[in-house]
Amino acid sequence: MDTLEHIDAYWRAANYLSVGQIYLLDNPLLTEPLRPEHIKPRLLGHWGTTPGLNFCFAHLNRIIAERDQDMIYIAGPGHGGPAAVAHAWLEGTYSEKYPDISRDAAGMRRLFRQFSFPGGIPSHVAPETPGSIHEGGELGYSLAHAYGAAIDNPDLVVACVIGDGEAETGPLAASWHSNKFLNRDRDGVVLPILHLNGYKIANPTVLARIPESELLDLMRGYGYRPHVVGPSHEEMAQTLDTVFDEMRDGGPLPMIILRTPKGWTGPREVDGQRVEGTWRSHQVPLADVRHHPERMAQLEEWMRSYRPDELFDADGRPREIVLRAVPDKRMSGSPHANGGEILRPLVLPDFREHAVEVKAPASHESEPTRALGGFLRDVIAANPASFRLMGPDETVSNRLQAVFEATDRTWNADLEPGDDHLSPDGRVMEVLSEHLCQGWLEGYLLTGRHGLFNCYEAFIHIIDSMFNQHAKWLDASRDIPWRRPIASLNYLLSSHVWRQDHNGFSHQDPGFLDVVVNKKASVVRVYLPPDANTLLSVGDHCLRSRDYVNVIVAGKQPVLDLFTMDEAITHCTRGLGIIDWASTDAGQEPDVVLACAGDVPTLETLAAAALLREHLPQLKVRVVNVVDLMRLQPPSEHPHGLSDAEYDALFTADKPVIFNFHGYPWLIHRLTYRRTGHANLHVRGYKEEGTTTTPFDMAMLNDIDRYHLVMDVIDRVPGLAVEQAHLRQHMADARLRARAHTREHGEDAPEIREWTWPYSS
Amino acid sequence: MDTLEHIDAYWRAANYLSVGQIYLLDNPLLTEPLRPEHIKPRLLGHWGTTPGLNFCFAHLNRIIAERDQDMIYIAGPGHGGPAAVAHAWLEGTYSEKYPDISRDAAGMRRLFRQFSFPGGIPSHVAPETPGSIHEGGELGYSLAHAYGAAIDNPDLVVACVIGDGEAETGPLAASWHSNKFLNRDRDGVVLPILHLNGYKIANPTVLARIPESELLDLMRGYGYRPHVVGPSHEEMAQTLDTVFDEMRDGGPLPMIILRTPKGWTGPREVDGQRVEGTWRSHQVPLADVRHHPERMAQLEEWMRSYRPDELFDADGRPREIVLRAVPDKRMSGSPHANGGEILRPLVLPDFREHAVEVKAPASHESEPTRALGGFLRDVIAANPASFRLMGPDETVSNRLQAVFEATDRTWNADLEPGDDHLSPDGRVMEVLSEHLCQGWLEGYLLTGRHGLFNCYEAFIHIIDSMFNQHAKWLDASRDIPWRRPIASLNYLLSSHVWRQDHNGFSHQDPGFLDVVVNKKASVVRVYLPPDANTLLSVGDHCLRSRDYVNVIVAGKQPVLDLFTMDEAITHCTRGLGIIDWASTDAGQEPDVVLACAGDVPTLETLAAAALLREHLPQLKVRVVNVVDLMRLQPPSEHPHGLSDAEYDALFTADKPVIFNFHGYPWLIHRLTYRRTGHANLHVRGYKEEGTTTTPFDMAMLNDIDRYHLVMDVIDRVPGLAVEQAHLRQHMADARLRARAHTREHGEDAPEIREWTWPYSS
Repeated sequence: MDTLEHIDAYWRAANYLSVGQIYLLDNPLLTEPLRPEHIKPRLLGHWGTTPGLNFCFAHLNRIIAERDQDMIYIAGPGHGGPAAVAHAWLEGTYSEKYPDISRDAAGMRRLFRQFSFPGGIPSHVAPETPGSIHEGGELGYSLAHAYGAAIDNPDLVVACVIGDGEAETGPLAASWHSNKFLNRDRDGVVLPILHLNGYKIANPTVLARIPESELLDLMRGYGYRPHVVGPSHEEMAQTLDTVFDEMRDGGPLPMIILRTPKGWTGPREVDGQRVEGTWRSHQVPLADVRHHPERMAQLEEWMRSYRPDELFDADGRPREIVLRAVPDKRMSGSPHANGGEILRPLVLPDFREHAVEVKAPASHESEPTRALGGFLRDVIAANPASFRLMGPDETVSNRLQAVFEATDRTWNADLEPGDDHLSPDGRVMEVLSEHLCQGWLEGYLLTGRHGLFNCYEAFIHIIDSMFNQHAKWLDASRDIPWRRPIASLNYLLSSHVWRQDHNGFSHQDPGFLDVVVNKKASVVRVYLPPDANTLLSVGDHCLRSRDYVNVIVAGKQPVLDLFTMDEAITHCTRGLGIIDWASTDAGQEPDVVLACAGDVPTLETLAAAALLREHLPQLKVRVVNVVDLMRLQPPSEHPHGLSDAEYDALFTADKPVIFNFHGYPWLIHRLTYRRTGHANLHVRGYKEEGTTTTPFDMAMLNDIDRYHLVMDVIDRVPGLAVEQAHLRQHMADARLRARAHTREHGEDAPEIREWTWPYSS
Repeated sequence: MDTLEHIDAYWRAANYLSVGQIYLLDNPLLTEPLRPEHIKPRLLGHWGTTPGLNFCFAHLNRIIAERDQDMIYIAGPGHGGPAAVAHAWLEGTYSEKYPDISRDAAGMRRLFRQFSFPGGIPSHVAPETPGSIHEGGELGYSLAHAYGAAIDNPDLVVACVIGDGEAETGPLAASWHSNKFLNRDRDGVVLPILHLNGYKIANPTVLARIPESELLDLMRGYGYRPHVVGPSHEEMAQTLDTVFDEMRDGGPLPMIILRTPKGWTGPREVDGQRVEGTWRSHQVPLADVRHHPERMAQLEEWMRSYRPDELFDADGRPREIVLRAVPDKRMSGSPHANGGEILRPLVLPDFREHAVEVKAPASHESEPTRALGGFLRDVIAANPASFRLMGPDETVSNRLQAVFEATDRTWNADLEPGDDHLSPDGRVMEVLSEHLCQGWLEGYLLTGRHGLFNCYEAFIHIIDSMFNQHAKWLDASRDIPWRRPIASLNYLLSSHVWRQDHNGFSHQDPGFLDVVVNKKASVVRVYLPPDANTLLSVGDHCLRSRDYVNVIVAGKQPVLDLFTMDEAITHCTRGLGIIDWASTDAGQEPDVVLACAGDVPTLETLAAAALLREHLPQLKVRVVNVVDLMRLQPPSEHPHGLSDAEYDALFTADKPVIFNFHGYPWLIHRLTYRRTGHANLHVRGYKEEGTTTTPFDMAMLNDIDRYHLVMDVIDRVPGLAVEQAHLRQHMADARLRARAHTREHGEDAPEIREWTWPYSS
C-alpha cells in the first residue's frame, strides 16, 4: 500500500524531528557524528507520548486528503510538545508563522535549538504552537475543548487524543458524556482517540490495565462505538476508514482505543533497564548524554533508525515521500485553531432597550440578572450560530429565563412529559459540571465564537485551575503576532455570597475574585454592577471585548434601581463615581467617604448614608460606588487604574473611607495599598462568617450592615466617638433587635423588609 | 413480609419528619388543623431527593440488623438534609447529641423549627448532622469520600447514595474507578447506590435518560456488578440481600441503580402542574403556603398520607412499628462518622534522626523533600493501618521515594514486568486525579485516620473548591462539642513555581496560598521551610496537629542547608527569625531588613546579603526568614500572629524592608498592612512572569534574584541611590550577562552555578 509508505515516512520524519528537538543544539541532519557540543546542556521534554501523537497525526492526514475533511487536532498529552511542533514544521505552517524557522537545514537547526530552551518555546503544546487550541500542561480538559470546538461547526471533525493518564482525571471522565449535547445536524464531530501507552509518570494507568472487555463496556456506556487498534499502520488506516464512515451513519459516534508501547521506537534499553514500553520513557530516555559517550552513540543510533536521509534532502528539506502525506487542509494551519482569524463580531442588539425605568433613584427595585436575561435572549436570537450560554443547570435559578423565549436547552436524548425547554437546537448548555461548562466554552471561544458562563459564585472555584490556564493562554497569546484576538471569556456569577443565606455556609464564598486578580492585569477584568442598568451596560461591554477574562458579579434578587440607563452608561464607563443623590458633601471635601462595590454592600451603604442623613445631618458624607474593581489599582499595575490624583479627588487623601465590599475585604487593601489615603481606609466585607439565615443577618454576621457602617463612621470620624456615643449605642441596639427578630421569626425584621429610602423624595 | 412493614413504617416516619422540617414551626403531630402560624415564613429545603435518601436508609438498616454489619451512610445529595436529620432523630442519636431535641413531641417541634432557620441548623447535611462525614452542598465528592472512609476499615461497609445530578460532575465520574485501589483483604467495601430520580434543578439528568443497556455497560465498564431497582420495597430488599452476598464472593463489587420518581410520595400536582416525578419537586413543592389556604390543605393532606398516628404516639414518640426498624449499630451514631472519637495519635518516629548534618551554615546542599521522604518512610512503617500518602503520580518526582523502602503504591489490578513498587498492600495512593487524592484523604481523615497529600504546587488549584469545603467543615465542627478533633489535612506542595522552569508557564502558579488564607484563621496554617531540617521539623509538627489545614511549600531541588536540627526546631517554633550569620547588623538597628519566605527566595536573599557584604561592608543588613506565614498577621487576625512590638523589633518600625516571597507579592501586603512599618515594606514575588527557561532566569524574570535585591536595597536605603549608582549599574549588568548566557547556552551562568557562599568561612 503506497500510501502507508508515505504515512510511515511522514511518521518517521516527525519522530526524528521530535527527538531532535529534545536533544540537539546543532548537527540537525547528523551530517557528522554527534559530539558533546551538539547536545543540549539540559535535556527537557517528554518523549513517551510523542510517537503515538505523531502516529495519529500522520494517519489523520491521509483521511483529510482523501475525504477533503476539515479537521483540527487536540493533543491531550500536551507535554508531547515536540510532536505538534514537528507537524507544523513538516506541513510548512511553522515557517509561515515564524519565517526564521525555515523548512530547511538552517530552520531545522533553529527548530531543535529553540525547543524548551530559554528564549525559545515551551516544552508543552502552547499558544506558540500553530494548529493548537489546547495547552495540555494541566491534564483533563482535552475532550471538553474538543466538544466546544465542534459545536456549531458542522463541517469540522475534531480529533482528540486522550492520554491514559489524563483519562484518570475527573474533568476528562465527565467529558465523555459531552456526546449527549452534540447535535448531529448542526455540530461537527469529535473523534476521541484514547491512547493507551500504559503508563503515567511512574505508575501504570487504570484504563490500560482493566480487562479489554471492561474498557469496551465503559466506552459503550459512554455512548460510543469503540474500535481497538494496535501499533500497526494497517490497523490504524483500516480503522480510520471505518470510523469516518460510521460518523455519518446515524449510529453512536465512534471512538478509537489505540494501544502502543510508551516511547515507541525509542531506546529499548538504557543501562540494562527496559525503557521502551515502560514508564521510564516518560520524559528523556537517555539522560545526560553530553557526558556519556555510550549514550551519545545510542542517541545517534536511535535518530538514524528513522533513516533521515530518506526523509530529508541534503538541504534539510522534507523529501517528496514525506510531503506527499501532507494534505492541503493542514491541521497545523486550520483557521479553527486560530479562532481570532475567523471571529466575527457578535450582532449586538441595543442593550438600552432592556433598561429598567428609573424615574427617581432608589424608588423601585429590579432583579438585575432578569433584565440581563432579556438582553441575552436578543443576543441569542441575533446570533443563531455563534453564541452559547453555559451553566450548571442554574440559568433559571440565576433568573436568566428570558433566554428560553428565544431558545431551549441543548438536549439530544429522549424527551419526556414535563421537560422544560429542551431541544437539540437549544443554545443554552446546562450540565451539572462546572468543568464541562468551562471546557466547552473555552473550546468554543478558542475556535472563534462567543459565550457566557453563568454560575453560582461559590462553585466557580471548581474551575479555578481551568481559569488559571486559560488566563495564561491569553497572556502568552498576546505576544504572538499571528494569534488573532478571540472573544473574552465572560463569567456571570450570581446567587452570590450575600444571597445564599438559605443554602448556607457551603454556598458562601466570594474568593474567585482573589484568584482572578492574581493573573496578569492585561488579561483580567472584574465588574460589580450594583443594579439592573449597570449590569446591562457591563454585559454589553464584556460581550464586545477581546482577549480578556471578564468576571461580572451581579445579584438575582431584587435590588434598588440606582441609575437611569444614561447614568449607568456613564458610571460604568468611568468605572466608579460619586452617587450624588446619596451624598451630603455638596461638592465639598467630605468628612467621610462611604465607598461600596457589589449590590448588597451598595444597598447597605446607601441605607447607612440615609441613617447618617437622618441622625447626623451636618456630616458631609460622600458615597462612592465602584463597578470596575481594577480602577482601584494604580495605573502602573493595571491599565484601568485610576491616577493617584483622580483617586485622591474621589476618596480624599486624608479622610476616613469606609469601604463596603462584596468579597473578602483584603482584596481592596491589596488593590489600594499604594494609595495616599490607604491608612485611612477601613474595609468591610465577607469574613467567612456564614450559616443558614436571612439576608440581613448575613450582612450583620460580617459587619457590612447599615447599622455597623454607621458605627464605623462614628468610630472613625474625628470627634464623633464621644459626641455620638448615644447614636452608636442606638445602632448597636438596632442590630441586636434585628438579630433577635430573625431568630424568633425566621425572617428579617420589619424595619429592614419595609425600609423606606429618603432619596426619591 | 413483616419486616417490610416495619421498613415502610420507618420510611413513612422519616418522610413525615422531612416534610415537617421543611414546613412547620408548630403543630408537629398535626393534632389540630394546620393554620398559617404553624407554617414557616420562609420555606427552604430540598424535598426532591429526600424520600429516596430515606428509602435507602430504611432498607440498609434491615441489613445492618440482620447481618450485624458496621455501616455508614454518605448522602451525596447533601441538600437532602432533612433526611439525615430525620434518621438521626428516629434512631435516638439526635437527642443524645442535642438533649434539648428530645425524641418526643416537644423535641419534634424544635427539630422542625430549627431546620434551615436562623440560629438553627443548615438545610444541607452538615457537620451538625450526626452520622455524616459529608456535606454535599457542593456536589461531586461523595464517592471519593466513601472510598476514603472504607480504606483500612476491613469491617466497614460505606453505603454511598449518588444523585444523578452529582453523577454528571467530573470528580464523581472519576471516583467510580476508586475500586481499583481497594484491597478486599484489608479495606472495607463501598456500596454505590446511583439514585436516578431523573432531574437536577430544572433539567433531566444524563444518566437517567440514556438507554438502560448503556447505563449497565457504563457501570460494568467502571468495574461493578450493577443491579437495577425500581421504587418497590420488595425489589430493594431482595437486591440488598443479593448485593451483600456478592460483596464477599470475590467477583466485581456490586452497585445499585435505584430508579424512583423525584419527590416520591410528595404532591402529585400543584396548581394543575405535575410535581411528583418532575424537576418541580426539587426544592419546596408547595410554595408560600401561609398565604394559600388550598396549599395548606394540600400540605396537611400530604403529611397525613404518611399516617402519623400509626408512627408516633400521642407524646410524639416513635411507636414500636417504627423503632423495630432501627438496628443496634445505628449509622447515625457510628463512631466512624465522628472520626475524632476513634482517632489514635500517630506513632511518630523521631524526625531528628533524619536531620541533615550542618557543620557550618550554607556550606552544603540537600534536597528537602528527600529528607522528609525518609521520615515519611518511618511514619508509614510505624503506622501500618492508619496513615496514607496521596499524590497524583508525583511521589517520586517530588523526591519522596524513600517511602518505597517501607511500602508500595496501592494497586489491585494486574502487574507487568517493569512495574515499580506496586502492590495491593501499598500505602501510597497515586492516581492522576487531584480530586481523588483530596477526596480519598478527606474521607480517610474524617473517619479518624492520618495522611498527607503531595502535589505539584500549580495543580493543587484543581482542588481549591474541595479545600474550601473541607476548611468550612472544620470551621463549623469547632462549634459542635460532640465532634471530636480529627487529624489535620496536610499538603506538601513541591515542584513549585521557582523550579518549574523546565515545564513552563502552565506549571507556575503559587496562588493556592491566597485561596487558603481566605479561610478562617482558626483553621489554616501555611509553612515555607527553607531547607531540609526546617522541613522535617514542620512536617513533624503538622502530623501531630488536629483540625487544621496545613500547607507546606518545600522544594525538591538541592538547596543550601541553613540550620542544624536544633536551630531548625527553634526557628520553626518561633516561626520566623533573624539569620545571624547572614546579617551584618550585629544586634544593632539595621539599615535595611532583607526578609524572605520560601526556599528559592531565601537563597536569593542570602546571595544578595553576600553581595552586600562584599560591596557595601558598612551597611547593616538584617536577614529575617519566615517559616510560618501566619506570624506576619496581627494576633487579632490569627492566633499565630506576632505582637506589634515583636514585629517591630524584628522588622523595625521605619527601616526599609525588602521582602522576597515565594508567592504572589500582595499576599505579604495583605498580611502586614496593619503593621507600623508597612509603608517601608517592599515585596518581591512571583508576578506571573513565567516561561520555559532556567531556574535563575525565572528568578530574574520576576525580580526576585540576588542582583535585583541589591538594586532594591540601593533604591530604598536613604543615600545609597546616588552614592552607589555604580554598584547598581554593576548589578544590572550582571543580570544582563546572566540572561545573555542563559539564552546562548541554555543553562544558568557559571557565576550562578558555581556561586560561593561567604558564610561558612
